[in-house]
Amino acid sequence: MKKPSKKKQPRAKKCRVTFLPKKAEALVPRGTSIYTASLKGGVYLNSACGGQKQCGKCKVRVRKGKVKKGTASILDAADVRAGLLLACDTLVEGDVVVEVPPETAAAKGRILESAATGEGDFPLDPLVKKIYVEPEPPSIENNIDDAQRLAMAVCKAAGIKAAEPDLDVIRDVTGAAREKGWKLTATYAPLGDAYRIIRVEAGNHEADNLAAAIDIGTTTVVVHLVEANTGRAIDVESKYNSQMKFGEDYIKRIMYAEEFLNFDEMRRLIVADINDLIDALCARNGADCLDIASVATAGNAAMQHFFLGLDPRNIRREPFVPAANFLPPVRAAEVGLNVNPRAIVRVLPGVSVYVGADITAGVLATGLYRNKELSLHIDIGTNGEIVLGNREWMACCSASAGPSFEGSGVKHGMRATDGAIEKVRIEGGYAATVSTIGDSKPAGICGSGLVDVLAELFKAGLLDRSGRFHFTEGGPIRIDEEGTPEFALVPAAKSRIERDIVINQIDIQDLIRSKAAIFAATAILAESMNVKFDDIRHVYIAGGFGNYLNIENAVVIGMLPDLPKERIQFVGNTALEGAKRCLLSREALEAANEIARRMTYFDLMSNYKYMDYYQQALFLPHTNLGLFPSAKKYAKA
Amino acid sequence: MKKPSKKKQPRAKKCRVTFLPKKAEALVPRGTSIYTASLKGGVYLNSACGGQKQCGKCKVRVRKGKVKKGTASILDAADVRAGLLLACDTLVEGDVVVEVPPETAAAKGRILESAATGEGDFPLDPLVKKIYVEPEPPSIENNIDDAQRLAMAVCKAAGIKAAEPDLDVIRDVTGAAREKGWKLTATYAPLGDAYRIIRVEAGNHEADNLAAAIDIGTTTVVVHLVEANTGRAIDVESKYNSQMKFGEDYIKRIMYAEEFLNFDEMRRLIVADINDLIDALCARNGADCLDIASVATAGNAAMQHFFLGLDPRNIRREPFVPAANFLPPVRAAEVGLNVNPRAIVRVLPGVSVYVGADITAGVLATGLYRNKELSLHIDIGTNGEIVLGNREWMACCSASAGPSFEGSGVKHGMRATDGAIEKVRIEGGYAATVSTIGDSKPAGICGSGLVDVLAELFKAGLLDRSGRFHFTEGGPIRIDEEGTPEFALVPAAKSRIERDIVINQIDIQDLIRSKAAIFAATAILAESMNVKFDDIRHVYIAGGFGNYLNIENAVVIGMLPDLPKERIQFVGNTALEGAKRCLLSREALEAANEIARRMTYFDLMSNYKYMDYYQQALFLPHTNLGLFPSAKKYAKA
Repeated sequence: MKKPSKKKQPRAKKCRVTFLPKKAEALVPRGTSIYTASLKGGVYLNSACGGQKQCGKCKVRVRKGKVKKGTASILDAADVRAGLLLACDTLVEGDVVVEVPPETAAAKGRILESAATGEGDFPLDPLVKKIYVEPEPPSIENNIDDAQRLAMAVCKAAGIKAAEPDLDVIRDVTGAAREKGWKLTATYAPLGDAYRIIRVEAGNHEADNLAAAIDIGTTTVVVHLVEANTGRAIDVESKYNSQMKFGEDYIKRIMYAEEFLNFDEMRRLIVADINDLIDALCARNGADCLDIASVATAGNAAMQHFFLGLDPRNIRREPFVPAANFLPPVRAAEVGLNVNPRAIVRVLPGVSVYVGADITAGVLATGLYRNKELSLHIDIGTNGEIVLGNREWMACCSASAGPSFEGSGVKHGMRATDGAIEKVRIEGGYAATVSTIGDSKPAGICGSGLVDVLAELFKAGLLDRSGRFHFTEGGPIRIDEEGTPEFALVPAAKSRIERDIVINQIDIQDLIRSKAAIFAATAILAESMNVKFDDIRHVYIAGGFGNYLNIENAVVIGMLPDLPKERIQFVGNTALEGAKRCLLSREALEAANEIARRMTYFDLMSNYKYMDYYQQALFLPHTNLGLFPSAKKYAKA
Repeated sequence: MKKPSKKKQPRAKKCRVTFLPKKAEALVPRGTSIYTASLKGGVYLNSACGGQKQCGKCKVRVRKGKVKKGTASILDAADVRAGLLLACDTLVEGDVVVEVPPETAAAKGRILESAATGEGDFPLDPLVKKIYVEPEPPSIENNIDDAQRLAMAVCKAAGIKAAEPDLDVIRDVTGAAREKGWKLTATYAPLGDAYRIIRVEAGNHEADNLAAAIDIGTTTVVVHLVEANTGRAIDVESKYNSQMKFGEDYIKRIMYAEEFLNFDEMRRLIVADINDLIDALCARNGADCLDIASVATAGNAAMQHFFLGLDPRNIRREPFVPAANFLPPVRAAEVGLNVNPRAIVRVLPGVSVYVGADITAGVLATGLYRNKELSLHIDIGTNGEIVLGNREWMACCSASAGPSFEGSGVKHGMRATDGAIEKVRIEGGYAATVSTIGDSKPAGICGSGLVDVLAELFKAGLLDRSGRFHFTEGGPIRIDEEGTPEFALVPAAKSRIERDIVINQIDIQDLIRSKAAIFAATAILAESMNVKFDDIRHVYIAGGFGNYLNIENAVVIGMLPDLPKERIQFVGNTALEGAKRCLLSREALEAANEIARRMTYFDLMSNYKYMDYYQQALFLPHTNLGLFPSAKKYAKA
């Protein structure tokens, strides 16, 4: 037989795309983007926009082979000189070898195991439990049906009155019981007033009881995998929310979805993000996704609406009514999560369209709701939400802060993952000393690093009070090719991206707008509740800054009120921590519901003073230096 | 441009199959069977085997066009002479015109509206209710979320404490509320200890609350559509169970499924049958299937296992343990029914693998379980189940009767639909007088007609006590072309099938075996419980015979004990009636559970006397004429 001539089938041939340094490969049709090929090859590239040529994060180098470059002009001159291309804007035309630079290789996510401060913890009493039973096998004399036999054994062993098996359990029990001679593990959970058996397995699998806490942020999605029986943290993974391509804030996303009637596309994106993270966590830890039997999500109202497929239109329309603040428990299959399809999914309750479940969970984690003394909880995400109160009362508000402290929209900003600069000091000679997550070669700057940069530049006299760089010929501030002043934190030689890591004037203005929004909201809320800052005994700062936040610097830039430092505490991602607690303790879940019911929402938008307060806060630390005695000395201009 | 030559694409051309008299058409590839084409064309042919060349029911005539005849030799010489072909065994080879004779056109189903006899009825309190509410629209002052607003309005209007909306309701409520200015109809149901809102609609749809009672029989599937608010019967539809092609009795079907690991195929067949019936009922009555919000099914254990996708293997293996006798409420989407996907489906409880929910439902319908006096309930389907007892105790057993009284396996047998002979008298001159359902031209004989035929032939002296025809040259009994003796009930000229409607020797033997199994089981059960027939005050005869059963004749053939006729009552399809009552009254549903818990199963198979009793009953009326004083006079031989 003749071999078919190669010339005759040019279109059938696929292009082999090899990704370095991992040597992962993908076979794709000609004309496929390198970004799409990376997904196929299991190579995880950084991307905030999901391959939409908008975020400029998926930079790669083509080492070999023919490609067609696109026309998106997001990359700057230095990128171009460095031979970088956008993976999403470059199409393969044959076999190609692609180098993924360290800054583009999506790193293992890392978030803070929150140092939450509630007075005492909740008792360990997981939402979903597993129990091993060995009921007596059936006989002619004792021929109770399989489902009842299982249920009776579970009730006896667990000390509960009644347990109703799901239809799927009745479907499985007959086979499972005969597999290992009536040695069975039942997964069961309270649902309403009764217990439901949601899974049955042959043999003893009591130990394999996993739970996933999920923080669905507007910018970042984080999944935390925990062992439900012990509360032990297994691993955590995060990524940017793929909805970013439809807008940085959720109002834009709602408008987009509304215009194109595409709510379901939004739902699919967020569910796919979560599933990506779950898959990655399971793969890395050798876990079976079917063992994830409980899930709790904490997100703002818009994210929870998108996640559940609720109609989000009224979130942006007066009188700002969500479809639901309180959600019934649902099964994973109903929302499309790639865990056990019968897993119990608890979508934590929110307070209003502007103060969501992430805040309820945060207040649960810090214990603000049961503190005798007055506490302030500030959660800095794409929105900044602020809660003020104690065990008697709680008021909350929300301010649009933007995603800059999450590393998005800042030139060398990045999430708090391996290689992110998390601490910065600028001392004599204006040289910056940085330290990074994982002590790795620096790849960019995460939230806590950005707070430091802003504060240190100000303290070093390189920024004036309005946030403008002091440019002096030959000084530390230089002008980049686009004419924007910038300050280099790390020289190319020492950076993982083989280029200087910088912060520029545009970044600075963005960060100042963010911190101003947060401070103004805090001030208005305190004033409205007739609280002086000094009355506040505890300040909890939450958010995805990283593992760490320099409190002093956060005060210097005027983000936080100038209180004695021992009263202020960085508590990390409390949304995730609160969600986790609800998975591990039914008492915590009840407390979350109580918090959402008790908290009063305070509307900033309708407060005529807000814009004034915001304008006054657009300075370092503030127009009114009297508010920031500890930062006063740095205000030279 | 040139037209493509016809010669080049001979295979692409489809064959047009036209069905007369309806003129329905189907376009199918060459080589498709006429049976398959009929399904595609929406023409409903009678078939018990589902196109497997086994039942011989799908007889058609090809009026025009080329076909390829198959080799199945089921049709008798008269059929062949009449130009009839099996639709499932005839392949189209071009455009074809097919005539569907009346006997083959599947008729509208008809079942008895049971004359159930319980002392007093259950209060009307439907399982699923609808309620119209007009909550106050949200405002800045009153910005409770949509889901809670609805739930609070429902609670207030319905006088219930709490109602939790399903996720799908929360998905819909926002849009529905804005469609007609917060004029909403909620569908709600108790589930566990709480109420669930399972649907929300814009506007007032309180009246559109439908419920479907389903009898899943081994041979026949029946769906009854009722108005849930009033209990009014809307319509009923039945068809043969498509699983028939895998065996007449369910043991054969389990064996088949087990051998080929094809439990899901069995599930799909039965669900498709039910959906066909629901679709037909909705189409005929202009009903919206989404308005069917509650469903109750009554079937034997095997049918319920197949329907729910449970593992049926142990139904035929000692110690005969089902996956479950008691089933949790499920949603229609979980089982694939074509009604509202959130509809509550109640699968009624059974007693054991041999006495299923059809009997629980039957005992509920007749009220046997609350009668002070001793009652006997005999349900004649493919199996005959017998219950004996009163409000103090209940015992039950099951006998394999075969499907002949359901019209299956009998030459001119048919279901109790339009045109079925339901009454027969044979008087002077051996001429049969028949009456049919719908007073239509006769097309075949249903169960009650078969009881009459057997009794009347016996009473007329045309059958001896062992069921053999008295053949006399020139007498009413003739010999057909295969050499089988037969008796003509209706001459071809007066029949809808344009041929004589007959009963033959093989049919007679089949019917006698069926009645013998039932009587033997009844006798054993009574004897075992130490009950004399005369102690029994009420005998309820249930089953799909038709609208009617001649009690006297049922005694004459020895199917029922020879008790005073006023004690015996034909009660129709009590499985369906019981299921309907559970849909209309929560009290009835509770009673059904109580019945299933209380009834004691009595195993005939392990009773050494059963085969003797069965052999003795293989006569007309019985070997022991002393048991049948009222029939004694007919026993001439």
